[in-house]
This record gives sequence, C-alpha cells and structure tokens, in this order.
Amino acid sequence: MHSVEFYRNEFISYLEQKTKTKEPKNLYEPITYILGLGGKRLRPVLTLLSTEIFGKEYKNALDAALAIEVFHNFSLVHDDIMDAAPLRRGKLTVHEKWDINTGILSGDAMLITAYQLFENYHGDTFKNLAKLFSKTALQVCEGQQYDIDFEDRDDVTLPEYLKMIEYKTAVLVAAALKMGGIIAEAALKDQNNIYDFGLNLGIAFQLQDDYLDAFGDPKTFGKQVGGDIIENKKTFLYLNVLENGTAQQKKELLDMYSIQPQNPSDKIASTKEIFEESGSAGNTKLAIAAYTKNAFTILEKLEVSADKKEVLYNFGENLMRREV
Amino acid sequence: MHSVEFYRNEFISYLEQKTKTKEPKNLYEPITYILGLGGKRLRPVLTLLSTEIFGKEYKNALDAALAIEVFHNFSLVHDDIMDAAPLRRGKLTVHEKWDINTGILSGDAMLITAYQLFENYHGDTFKNLAKLFSKTALQVCEGQQYDIDFEDRDDVTLPEYLKMIEYKTAVLVAAALKMGGIIAEAALKDQNNIYDFGLNLGIAFQLQDDYLDAFGDPKTFGKQVGGDIIENKKTFLYLNVLENGTAQQKKELLDMYSIQPQNPSDKIASTKEIFEESGSAGNTKLAIAAYTKNAFTILEKLEVSADKKEVLYNFGENLMRREV
Repeated sequence: MHSVEFYRNEFISYLEQKTKTKEPKNLYEPITYILGLGGKRLRPVLTLLSTEIFGKEYKNALDAALAIEVFHNFSLVHDDIMDAAPLRRGKLTVHEKWDINTGILSGDAMLITAYQLFENYHGDTFKNLAKLFSKTALQVCEGQQYDIDFEDRDDVTLPEYLKMIEYKTAVLVAAALKMGGIIAEAALKDQNNIYDFGLNLGIAFQLQDDYLDAFGDPKTFGKQVGGDIIENKKTFLYLNVLENGTAQQKKELLDMYSIQPQNPSDKIASTKEIFEESGSAGNTKLAIAAYTKNAFTILEKLEVSADKKEVLYNFGENLMRREV
Repeated sequence: MHSVEFYRNEFISYLEQKTKTKEPKNLYEPITYILGLGGKRLRPVLTLLSTEIFGKEYKNALDAALAIEVFHNFSLVHDDIMDAAPLRRGKLTVHEKWDINTGILSGDAMLITAYQLFENYHGDTFKNLAKLFSKTALQVCEGQQYDIDFEDRDDVTLPEYLKMIEYKTAVLVAAALKMGGIIAEAALKDQNNIYDFGLNLGIAFQLQDDYLDAFGDPKTFGKQVGGDIIENKKTFLYLNVLENGTAQQKKELLDMYSIQPQNPSDKIASTKEIFEESGSAGNTKLAIAAYTKNAFTILEKLEVSADKKEVLYNFGENLMRREV
C-alpha cells in the first residue's frame, strides 16, 4: 500500500498523459481545460486505493479511476450550465469560457469517453464496471433532478433530502470504491461492503458540508460561509427545523428564507440562531456522526488485513476532520 | 424474414412497453415525450432486419434497436437546444415544452439508458455492442462539432464536408446494421461489410437531403424547399460551386449567401440557377449515385442468401427513391 499522496500523483500523471486535445479542437479543448482545473481527485484515488486493498496493483485501476474522474467532471460541466455558475474552482466554467452549446456537447463527449475507458478491461470485469457505472450515472442524474425539483417545493422531507444527496453525491464515492473491488475480483460481499462504506461516508461528508456552510470557520472553509442561507437553500439544517422545530421557530425560519437583503449578515446570524435553538444544528451533528460511525462499522466487516482497513479508516477520518 | 412494416410495428410495441415514465417525473417525462413523437424508426428497423439477415430472430435485437433509437433521440434533444429549434416532427422540442436544463439532463439520462439496454447481452456480445456504440456516439458528437465549426469557416472543403455528414449521420446507420451482425455473431467480414453498406447508404441519403432541399418537389419533400439556401447553409451543393465553379459563379454565390431578404424567392431561384449552371447540381447527383452504387456493390459481398440481400437492396432502393 502507498500513501494517498502517492496515488493522487500517479493518477494526475496518468490523467495528463491521457488527456491530449484531439480534433475537433472545439470539442476536446474544453475537456482538457476542465480536467486540468485540479480538485482533490478524491474519487479516483479511492478507486486506486480500493484496488490495492483487495490485492491487485493500482496500475490496473488507472483507467477506471480516470472514468470516474471524467464522469465527475462531465456532471460538473452540465450542472454548472443548469446552475448558471460563472466559476468552478476559481476559474471560469466551461459555458462561461466558451458557450452553453460547447458545454453541452463537450459534456456529452466526456460521458461517452468515460465508458470507453473501461474497454481495456476484459470479460466480466468490463461488464461489471460498465453496469455499475450506468446505474451510478443514472442515479446522479436523478439526484440532480430531485435537487432542482426541491427548489420549487415547500414540502420536502428529511428522508427525501437524504435520498437526494445519496444519489447526487454519495453513490459516486461508493462506486469509485466498489470498482476497485471489481478490478481486483474481490468477493461480492466485500464489494458490497466497501460500496456501503463509501455510501455512508459520502452522505456524512455532504451533511458536514451543509453544516460547515453555516457554522464553518471562514478561514478554513473553502466557500463563503452562509452561502446556503443567502441562497435560501433547503439544506439538512433548514429541513430539520421545519420537521422538529416549534411553530415559532418554523415561522421565523420561513420569514428569513423569504427575504434577500443587500447585506446578508443579520439574516445569516438570525438563521444560525434558529438552527441552534431549534436543535437542528445538534441534530445535524448527530446525523453526521451516525453516518460516519455506520461507515466505520461496515469497514470492520471487510475481509482484508487490519493494516489495509486502517488506510481506509484514516482516509475517512481525514475527510471528516474538517474545521468547524 | 418479415416486411419492414412488420419490424417497425414490433419495434414500436417494444418501445411503448419499455418507456414507462419513472420517478423523478421531470427527468423521465421528457424522455417518454420525445420517444413518442414518432419518426420513421429507420435505424432500429435496420438492427432487427440485419439480425435476421444473419440468421438470428429479431426478438434478440429489440434491446439494441431501442438503444439506437434512444441514442438518436438523445442527439435530437441536445442538437435542438444547440440549434434553438422550436419544433421537432411538428411538435414542440423538449427545451421549448420544458426548458433548456430539462433538455440537458433528460438527454444525459437517455445516453446512459442507451448503454443500459445492452446489459441483457452476454459475454463478448455485450462488449462488442458497447464498444461500437461508444465509438459511434463519439463520432456523432464530433460530427455535430464540425457542423457547428463550419458555420464560422469560409474554407470548408468537400472532403471535410463529407467527413462531417459521415460522422453526424452515416455512422449511426452503419452501426445500427452492424449491431445485427454482432447479435447474430456473424463473421467479422460480414459485420464490416454491412457496416460499410450502411455508411455509404447513409452518406448518399444525406447528400440527397441536401439536393432535395433545393430541388425537391414542395408537395412531397417533408421540409420547406430552399430552407438551406435561406439559412446560408454550407451544403454539398454550395461547397461544390466554390470548389468547381468559375470565378464569376463563386462570386455570385457568395453574394447570394451574404443577403437575407424578407422574401427569399428570388434568392432561392438565383442560387439554384448557380447550382445548375456551375455543374454543382449535376455533380451532387453523380455523388449520390456513386455512394448508392458503392453501397449496393458492398452488399453483393455479404455471404448470405440472395433473397436476404434483396431485402436490404429493396430497403436502400426505397430510401433513395424520393421525389426529386
């Protein structure tokens, strides 16, 4: 086993070597651009790591890892169009740097390219990877649709919200890990356990993102603290007040979410107060802890040596140890 | 062997049975809508037909045929956004009936669904279908990109144009036929021959579309005659003048393509005159005849019985026998 840093560097070299711009340039340049913008490369690293945990060399997993990363970036390109987002990782989004049509078509080409990356795998491995990939990709689309639908709904429940973040975010983390199991031909039980580990960790991570968006340290949290509140986003914190708060707390929160003041400081402060007094902040922390614990309990069931489990355990710990 | 009409009806029943709207509705309803708009269903019929030509029952090919049709409709949904087209088959396009974001996301889901339809095929058949599909889908994207690029270029050559229509249109016809060969496990040579038959027929069909757009009979040609001329489209007719016309004819054509009169009748009449006098109309007819002949010559090489070749021959004849 190598360090996470080692896998990341190996992945980035492979990515650079594989993403040469082909003809027609206007189709492939945006792909090289978005794939070169950086990011933590968490998902492909998980595929490499998981492959070695199940006893096969990470080099066998580079194409699958790249497929995961290409798909993830495809979804960013299309989502950024839908959200009319000007920036991605501090740089112009594809549809801003080029145009919407370019974003659509280059995104389509990325989705197809992701499938092609499985073609170096033989026999059952190819089919198992492609099947898992299709199922996951369709869930990501469904998650994105639920996210869009929720904007116009005022009766979203916590279970619905959890399903949305599971589909939109967690299934891809889970699939990235399971692909390592497929490539290493691990026992089905282990493949499913590592998938469930990823699914729980992914949900915990997304809930933590909701929490930190309100309560994170502006110095260490990557995004603008209070961003979700400014945009009236129906996060886990928000929905928890509506489900568990008093009539008064619900009314105050709905009032806050009906205004869009020039200076949002007061709105952010008042909303955070409601999150705390209603118990929503505490409930969210409990939920994060519960999903994280679930992930680590499932990890114990993996039939691999203790030192290998520890690699995944440390990865999960690091991921969840963000500044609050 | 059955009639083309029989295969079409069987395909339509299968399509209707398979396209039930799932949740989330806003993702799947547009898919049911666009797949229900009709059309000639030429491509899926070719897959069924080709499967029986190579000796396997058409029922084995229904999923692959549906994948081809779902992909074709995916490309229509995304292309219609790029072209800002209000209508498709006389009905509202998806992005007009819903919105652009719905068109993007439902299109993405269709592309993934197409891949999933191959999952009922086992072993090599699954991989061969998925590989051919990915290669073809990527070429279709590249063809669309070339088509977009050509709008801004004034140095497009005839070979470049032929490559564009090959990628944008013909490869999918070719792949639809080859999939029948893959499913029936035909000899590789036969698979490649039926692919090349489809490729040549597809190019001939698209060139004929260019020709009929100017010289077709308004009573029988589905679209507005002269539409390409009104839109200053760089068709085979146009490029042929630039490549083979006199300096005077080129100048006149460029002049015509620089104006957008309220009433386009004179522009259409003058442009058609240039197409005829420069020999472009004649050259285009020769090219259509040459690609059609190529297709039928390749057909002869297929190692199947004469009556089966005749089915494909009649299909091609019918396709090319449109009113001029």
